[in-house]
Amino acid sequence: MELVRTTPILLAPGPTEIDPRVLKSMATFAESHFAQPFCNTFGDVLTMLRVLFQSEDPNAQAFVIGGSGTLGWDFVGTNFIEPGEAVLCLSTGYFSDGFEMCLSTYGARTTRMAAPIGTAPDLSVIEEALRTVRYKALVVAHVDTSTGVLTPLKPISDLLKRVSPDTLFVVDGVASVASEDLQFTAWGIDVVVTGSQKAIGCPPGLSILMVSPRALHVANTRKAPPSTWYASLVRWLPIMQNYEKKESSYFATPPTQIVHALRTSLLVMLSRPLEERFQAHREASARVKAAIRELGLTQVARKEEHQANGVTAFWLPDGLTSKDFLSRAAAKGITFVGGMHKELGHKYARFGHMGYSAVSEDAGHIDKGIQVLREVIMEYYSERANDSASRYEATFTGPVRASL
Amino acid sequence: MELVRTTPILLAPGPTEIDPRVLKSMATFAESHFAQPFCNTFGDVLTMLRVLFQSEDPNAQAFVIGGSGTLGWDFVGTNFIEPGEAVLCLSTGYFSDGFEMCLSTYGARTTRMAAPIGTAPDLSVIEEALRTVRYKALVVAHVDTSTGVLTPLKPISDLLKRVSPDTLFVVDGVASVASEDLQFTAWGIDVVVTGSQKAIGCPPGLSILMVSPRALHVANTRKAPPSTWYASLVRWLPIMQNYEKKESSYFATPPTQIVHALRTSLLVMLSRPLEERFQAHREASARVKAAIRELGLTQVARKEEHQANGVTAFWLPDGLTSKDFLSRAAAKGITFVGGMHKELGHKYARFGHMGYSAVSEDAGHIDKGIQVLREVIMEYYSERANDSASRYEATFTGPVRASL
Repeated sequence: MELVRTTPILLAPGPTEIDPRVLKSMATFAESHFAQPFCNTFGDVLTMLRVLFQSEDPNAQAFVIGGSGTLGWDFVGTNFIEPGEAVLCLSTGYFSDGFEMCLSTYGARTTRMAAPIGTAPDLSVIEEALRTVRYKALVVAHVDTSTGVLTPLKPISDLLKRVSPDTLFVVDGVASVASEDLQFTAWGIDVVVTGSQKAIGCPPGLSILMVSPRALHVANTRKAPPSTWYASLVRWLPIMQNYEKKESSYFATPPTQIVHALRTSLLVMLSRPLEERFQAHREASARVKAAIRELGLTQVARKEEHQANGVTAFWLPDGLTSKDFLSRAAAKGITFVGGMHKELGHKYARFGHMGYSAVSEDAGHIDKGIQVLREVIMEYYSERANDSASRYEATFTGPVRASL
Repeated sequence: MELVRTTPILLAPGPTEIDPRVLKSMATFAESHFAQPFCNTFGDVLTMLRVLFQSEDPNAQAFVIGGSGTLGWDFVGTNFIEPGEAVLCLSTGYFSDGFEMCLSTYGARTTRMAAPIGTAPDLSVIEEALRTVRYKALVVAHVDTSTGVLTPLKPISDLLKRVSPDTLFVVDGVASVASEDLQFTAWGIDVVVTGSQKAIGCPPGLSILMVSPRALHVANTRKAPPSTWYASLVRWLPIMQNYEKKESSYFATPPTQIVHALRTSLLVMLSRPLEERFQAHREASARVKAAIRELGLTQVARKEEHQANGVTAFWLPDGLTSKDFLSRAAAKGITFVGGMHKELGHKYARFGHMGYSAVSEDAGHIDKGIQVLREVIMEYYSERANDSASRYEATFTGPVRASL
């Protein structure tokens, strides 16, 4: 089966380019979700996810549910937080805010702690908040894809252990799992929400979660029953436990082909040490960020320690809108994506370098992406210089030219 | 790209066998859900779904959301019914009951009207209920996949128009859309919930709905805000409207590859008149049902007018469990599935004949399925006859044989 490419290379922070082996798994023949072969596939996936999440407690549980990463937010809202409970939501962009709004839909009493755009919330401010209110959960986007801001988790983990050990540590890892080091057990994380289509390198369509034994207990013993059917942990838990034992079980039909693709992706990923994968992301990221700098541009994420390794959000030169930038880049064979911010979205663009494109040097995606980025920006600089010169000329010789 | 089959043919009532053209679309290269090519694809899908649903009012709207068919139940529960409102739920099996339980999770005051297994609810009983209580909605599974019982919609539509025109007409079409005639506009249906993996002939992973202007109005003007984030109609509506205009819009990342597969499937499906498709299902169904009869077996659905055209659920011969039947059939290259009923599930099996297998005679799936069905049942009859003969012999000559 040969795959013939006719589309631009996708360097977005999700969906990302897909390893051809993973893509081929998408064309797996139809099979019953009740039959043994699929149980084996799904079982492998659930077990391998433990390794990817660095989850060492056998009583933690991975969940793989048909839907987008966003569905994971509902899963958190309906299972781990009772209506009226206080939740501290750190915000570093569009997705942090979405998570917060989702939780408040489920009745959580949320406190939004937003850092200025491009920065991560200050630890001392978080500590103060944790000392003031007894929060049921602290929610943070490890990487907010909208801004490329990475919030280091280890310091928050240390802070929670020290100041508020009963608070559930909930992480949106949609744009970080498989591109950033994320140590589920060592950092005492209770819930990580992610999707299939970013650094995990599959097509979109799966909501993927890892849940600690403590969070499972919270969900299993909550007073109010879960307010949804499809996102109910108590309904999905036995399904995941059975599939991990390679036994069939039914609540809703899983997206069998994407589960196959996920198995292939995990097999490829885990055939090398995870640290190598993270290092490949750091290197790809460093190359992109160097190119941005050399072009005289600045990143949305201000400090190096808050810059994600899977995506670079950068301010465009004055006068170049993201729409214009994207169409110029697309014409040269690369799909980047624009900014996501109510007022500032059109002023910046995002270069995704996660998953297959970051780890497979042979594919040459990052090289090509940097080349196109340089060409587009340099061409724009050059047009602007000409334009500026001709405007200068127009002003200076205006009356004469006008008379021609 | 050549697809090489190594698995049994799947004759389940979903997932179903996939047209090779559709399967190839699953391996579409990664692309941005914001970029024009995907907007065009998604737009085509949403427009073609109007034709499939026989939805003629331009103000109705199709929704395609990442998730399973089950998610559609949540969509109904959270958008069209306010907590405390009365809903009449007709039940013809496992899935009808699931829908009812889902709605009650969202606070609906449900009345479950269950017909004896294998039958559809009596119209006069429904009429009496509608005359007694002012129901916000009547919910019915067009075909309940668990039993293969089809509930004719036209008579219920007529009844509602006559007796309770304000009641929303909500249909679970998971096992009927694209295999049974379903006239959304003509029958005054307000909501149809379905999935991608049954007669529509795609892999699982999409929740697909068609919603009438009246139901959209109900959702847009409800008093209580929707209680979920991911299944909120007010959040998805502009997304679907924009994509149908082939403009990008974001709420959650759609499963881009399955949307491609759905486009291919719809293109193939709608290249012929829908009535031809329904007729092909009727013919495949008639052949399977004749084979069942010839084997001396009976269907779970008792009356002909209540027998679905996409699935046949049939009682197994005494002593043959569904587990045994399925493994014998699988050994001969066909995956059937077992029953779904708390007490009776192991006593019957289901032969799916929907989607690609039903419409593509060249594939020969139905022939092969009937052949394997015959072989397995005849072999079992023959073993039972021998066994019975030898048991008779054992009884008769017991003492003698025991002394050997």
